[in-house]
Amino acid sequence: MPQNSDAILANWNGVEMPLADVRVSVLDRSFLFGDAIYEVLRVYSGIPFRLQDHLDRLTRNLEKLKIPADVGRLAERMDATLQNSGLDEASIYLHVSRGEAPRTHRLPVPAPRPNELIYVQPFRDPYPTQRIHGGRAILIRDIRWKRCDIKSVNLLANVLGAEEAHAAGRDEAIFVEEDGSLVEGTHTSLFAVRDGSILTSPLGPQLLPGITRKLILEMAARTQIPLVEERLHRDQLGEIDELFLTGTSTEVLPIVEVDDISIGDGKPGAITQRLQAVYREIVSAECRPKS
Amino acid sequence: MPQNSDAILANWNGVEMPLADVRVSVLDRSFLFGDAIYEVLRVYSGIPFRLQDHLDRLTRNLEKLKIPADVGRLAERMDATLQNSGLDEASIYLHVSRGEAPRTHRLPVPAPRPNELIYVQPFRDPYPTQRIHGGRAILIRDIRWKRCDIKSVNLLANVLGAEEAHAAGRDEAIFVEEDGSLVEGTHTSLFAVRDGSILTSPLGPQLLPGITRKLILEMAARTQIPLVEERLHRDQLGEIDELFLTGTSTEVLPIVEVDDISIGDGKPGAITQRLQAVYREIVSAECRPKS
Repeated sequence: MPQNSDAILANWNGVEMPLADVRVSVLDRSFLFGDAIYEVLRVYSGIPFRLQDHLDRLTRNLEKLKIPADVGRLAERMDATLQNSGLDEASIYLHVSRGEAPRTHRLPVPAPRPNELIYVQPFRDPYPTQRIHGGRAILIRDIRWKRCDIKSVNLLANVLGAEEAHAAGRDEAIFVEEDGSLVEGTHTSLFAVRDGSILTSPLGPQLLPGITRKLILEMAARTQIPLVEERLHRDQLGEIDELFLTGTSTEVLPIVEVDDISIGDGKPGAITQRLQAVYREIVSAECRPKS
Repeated sequence: MPQNSDAILANWNGVEMPLADVRVSVLDRSFLFGDAIYEVLRVYSGIPFRLQDHLDRLTRNLEKLKIPADVGRLAERMDATLQNSGLDEASIYLHVSRGEAPRTHRLPVPAPRPNELIYVQPFRDPYPTQRIHGGRAILIRDIRWKRCDIKSVNLLANVLGAEEAHAAGRDEAIFVEEDGSLVEGTHTSLFAVRDGSILTSPLGPQLLPGITRKLILEMAARTQIPLVEERLHRDQLGEIDELFLTGTSTEVLPIVEVDDISIGDGKPGAITQRLQAVYREIVSAECRPKS
């Protein structure tokens, strides 16, 4: 169950308070237009994993939307609030809205002060058993906007997709384009394994440049597993050997069934499990408990 | 200039207060996911124009997103807050969010209480001179999601489009699909006139079922101007006689230039002006000042 928001420590525009107490004007553009950028970070042993990658992506996204936030200051706040939370195994939610202004579609002039939210909560694994035994997914039509490379809070298509998966008793929904190619999940990146090679969609406007996706590319190079950036077509699902999803909270999640198609032999595959192990090794190396 | 939000009367979940004082939890799903529906109504002589159409659309949209709000109660509040505002020429903004819950993509269980915002502000005409002399538009690629029939606050593509138009010194941006067909504006419906007939895109998932769009269909029938629901292609812009945009605040706005293409003879056309006149007649008939 989600934690009580009274017990979650937030930082709202530089001031720490319980998450349940953070209130924003309804003229905030995140509320009125979804005009905001976010990140979710995983903390292992008190250390945010791949922090710089998240900050770099945040910086790029803020630039794309011309939201003038100071990422260095956000990083300092995040560090302080994580320390003050006292949590070691945690997730950090970071949200930067364009700020408050009278409602007009076009960007307000002068630019308002961005509203900056950070909160730190105990990590709750969304897929503890599925990561071992494999999860199951459905395919859904990709109805999202065409700038999914921007990690904005215009997430209604993702919400509806995740709800559809949940209602079907599945773990995730995978977006399929009109040409039948598989893009990514509602909050995960998608990978397949075929004949010993890893396949994943190339980056582009329809794909979030996932931090864990980037890590998989790095891990493939390190373990000398060939990796090819090409799209997987839905018709190929019966032919591939393995399928897995990745994400900051998801880590590496084997998928053993998609709609009514069993993937490979219906069990988590060898390369997926190898990547899970390497993932743990990298986490251990980069997030050593402070003594 | 936008009005000072201190002076704007709001109704927040049934309680009236200055708009500037309305605060919402950052766990509200409109803030986190754009998980909310909205309407904008125009008030003439103290009477909301085409109220029932707006309430019907609101009801349909809430059903599409499974947000359990009581539209009858919202209508009562809207009426009371309009009366208490003392305004005759006004616009009403109505926003229903799914409500507050710990952040997960899928719909929270149990369903939270929706957060319901209404505010009433003096009407400020966005296009006073353009409605007489004609406005100018640009064409932009339609990067919106594929459920634009739902009037949600996932509006970032509309925001970016409106900003692009504004930066180009134009009045509106018109979305163009990949096949070159023109859909609608960032906050307006689109109509063309060719050989004495009005053309507009048929309703579908890529199009908002505009209240003013519906009114144009009604006015065309009343004035016996033929109206055909078919898509306009960008290549046809040089051949058409007139072009206009419609919307609740926009009313009927002649467009005399699109990108560098002059429409017709570069002046508001006869049928557009006829529709503007009929629009005023209908408003006068339906929104008679209370004496």
